[in-house]
Amino acid sequence: MVGVRGARVTDFGRTTLPYCSFVRPGEARARVGVGVGTDVVDLTAALATRRHAYAGLFAAGSLDPLLAAGPRTWHEVRTYVAANLSALAEHQVPASGVELVLPFEVADYVDFYASEHHASNVGRLFRPDGDALTPNWKHLPIGYHGRAGTVVVSGTPIRRPSGQMRERDGTIAFGPTAKLDLEAETGFVVGAGSSLGEPVPVESFDQHVFGVCVVNDWSARDVQAWEYVPLGPFLGKSFATSVSPWVVPLAALAGARIDPPRRDPDPVAYLQDDEPWGLDLELEIAVNGTVVSRAPYSEMYWTPAQMLAHLTVNGAALRPGDLFASGTVSGPGPGQQGSLLELSWNGSRPVTLDDGSTRAFLLDGDRVTIAATARLAGGRRIALGQVEGQVTS
Amino acid sequence: MVGVRGARVTDFGRTTLPYCSFVRPGEARARVGVGVGTDVVDLTAALATRRHAYAGLFAAGSLDPLLAAGPRTWHEVRTYVAANLSALAEHQVPASGVELVLPFEVADYVDFYASEHHASNVGRLFRPDGDALTPNWKHLPIGYHGRAGTVVVSGTPIRRPSGQMRERDGTIAFGPTAKLDLEAETGFVVGAGSSLGEPVPVESFDQHVFGVCVVNDWSARDVQAWEYVPLGPFLGKSFATSVSPWVVPLAALAGARIDPPRRDPDPVAYLQDDEPWGLDLELEIAVNGTVVSRAPYSEMYWTPAQMLAHLTVNGAALRPGDLFASGTVSGPGPGQQGSLLELSWNGSRPVTLDDGSTRAFLLDGDRVTIAATARLAGGRRIALGQVEGQVTS
Repeated sequence: MVGVRGARVTDFGRTTLPYCSFVRPGEARARVGVGVGTDVVDLTAALATRRHAYAGLFAAGSLDPLLAAGPRTWHEVRTYVAANLSALAEHQVPASGVELVLPFEVADYVDFYASEHHASNVGRLFRPDGDALTPNWKHLPIGYHGRAGTVVVSGTPIRRPSGQMRERDGTIAFGPTAKLDLEAETGFVVGAGSSLGEPVPVESFDQHVFGVCVVNDWSARDVQAWEYVPLGPFLGKSFATSVSPWVVPLAALAGARIDPPRRDPDPVAYLQDDEPWGLDLELEIAVNGTVVSRAPYSEMYWTPAQMLAHLTVNGAALRPGDLFASGTVSGPGPGQQGSLLELSWNGSRPVTLDDGSTRAFLLDGDRVTIAATARLAGGRRIALGQVEGQVTS
Repeated sequence: MVGVRGARVTDFGRTTLPYCSFVRPGEARARVGVGVGTDVVDLTAALATRRHAYAGLFAAGSLDPLLAAGPRTWHEVRTYVAANLSALAEHQVPASGVELVLPFEVADYVDFYASEHHASNVGRLFRPDGDALTPNWKHLPIGYHGRAGTVVVSGTPIRRPSGQMRERDGTIAFGPTAKLDLEAETGFVVGAGSSLGEPVPVESFDQHVFGVCVVNDWSARDVQAWEYVPLGPFLGKSFATSVSPWVVPLAALAGARIDPPRRDPDPVAYLQDDEPWGLDLELEIAVNGTVVSRAPYSEMYWTPAQMLAHLTVNGAALRPGDLFASGTVSGPGPGQQGSLLELSWNGSRPVTLDDGSTRAFLLDGDRVTIAATARLAGGRRIALGQVEGQVTS
């Protein structure tokens, strides 16, 4: 579990209480922290000092043992922290003074494709002669496995990948991607695992998923376009996927649950949901400080509960640390798309930054920040953390 | 690391010396073993008793520490075992009396598509109106990530998965797959990892890959056909992938290296290979004891060294325990295909078993065995182990 100096901490409210893994200056070992305001409560130290029954869960400094402990323990730890915030202040340090590292070991990583607007846009760009959506799109949440070993914490430099691509004249070239892109997504972190052969029904979502993080699924569009038929994206995605250092417990998002868009046609039984797991989140995307998009998660066609039910309906087992991401979040309006591919319409309408420069795709040195917020019933907006990364050559 | 009673052990020659992880009756902890004949040498016990400098590598009973130790250690351990076989006999037990478990923790699992014959057959069946091979096929070894968490050891029962599929009349159905298939593949087990951003060139293959296993990439063809556009196979594959309990060191296959088929057109520079990494292996597939195919690995278009170079050319990092499989091994002749999809031509020409019954695809209760052998220069054939699994409802 290595990491680099992570993202700036967003100012967390006292009911959000996201978890992180962090390293104090001069120390080698990691600790588990809880975000309060712009500080981190050192939970590893606090529970050890107090000889708390759950101290052992935090001793290793990673979220892995907590994830595996299951929903009853998640609830008890969160309740304990919320009830003892004042007393725990003695273990509080400014987040800006510590190194935030990858908070859990990613077991399997799955990326979905759950935004109708994004899928339609990509379909028009990649398959201009076909239908925007493939025939299966409204029947199941399309997804594929990505590379768990290249999931990195926010702040990790992103080296521009090289790969094969087909030029306009049909020749096959090899070199650095000319179409390096971001993808703003919401990630769902599985805690409690499941047994091989046992599907997880849509209503058991919150018994298995621990929380939410912010994901940038970096993409090399020219590599992807050449390689992805017939077995899907591979090297166009596998060079790096960045995640926020904070995992926000699902419990903190109870007030942000909303009805998802109406699904038409009705999906088959295992995808039918009575409990609403739409989420009123917004992902604000900035390139070098210029906000280029505010992508509304509320528009996602498939909910994370449906994604999990689909992922396991064939009996595939879950493990603690499985991460599944929503796919690029794009809304219907201008300035709501979660990728430069869509924002610049494959480069044909470059995006203008505050310094007057334009971007079709990312240049070396560009810094991408995706900051997530949730709007709770009543309208109050809470911060969920952010993921950032700078492109290097 | 859990497992079930594993495959019967093939009779290993004294220069093959494959590794396994096994559990003695009545014990809970696993041990690392080396296969000799039909026995297992308990390397964990042997090296501990002798206070060998590498005893610590085997204490945990998994191959993970050995994999991570790198090529120099692999060589030293293999040399030590080969030189001390007689003395180690006191730690030898019949393999039939122990439980063979998953020998290493799978980090990332990638499945390639490296047989031209297989890709052509699948193209004809899945895309009858298009070209058999996609335009990219001869330019790069196509691959995709699979689910590491559902890689299981030989002998694990395979529950028939359910999923969505499109009926002939266009309606969307959900239920148990009617087209459960096997795929005979060779798996390559990564030992030494690599750094993010650093491609592994084709000539460094044997500095990173530790050894070889046999893979059955179970597939639900009806689920796969409906879901795989545009992001590739997902639930049609992710319910289970079986691997042999034995990992044969690459060093044991030195005599089986052959020139791969001629590649036309010449691939781009990073895929050009001077050292031949074609392998003269055969995968013998049996259903309920009837041999239905003998698939020649010598026919594979892309070598495993090319697969590894491709997998990392975008800077994707390797971790110890990464597993990449060749994709289905199919030869050009009759009875050389590595899947029932091809052998029965999508069910239109069912395969007849010795008991007179026929199979388009697998039925509940069917037992599939894939046994691998290598032909060394000079013609001698050595056993590489086998993977088996029985279908349950």
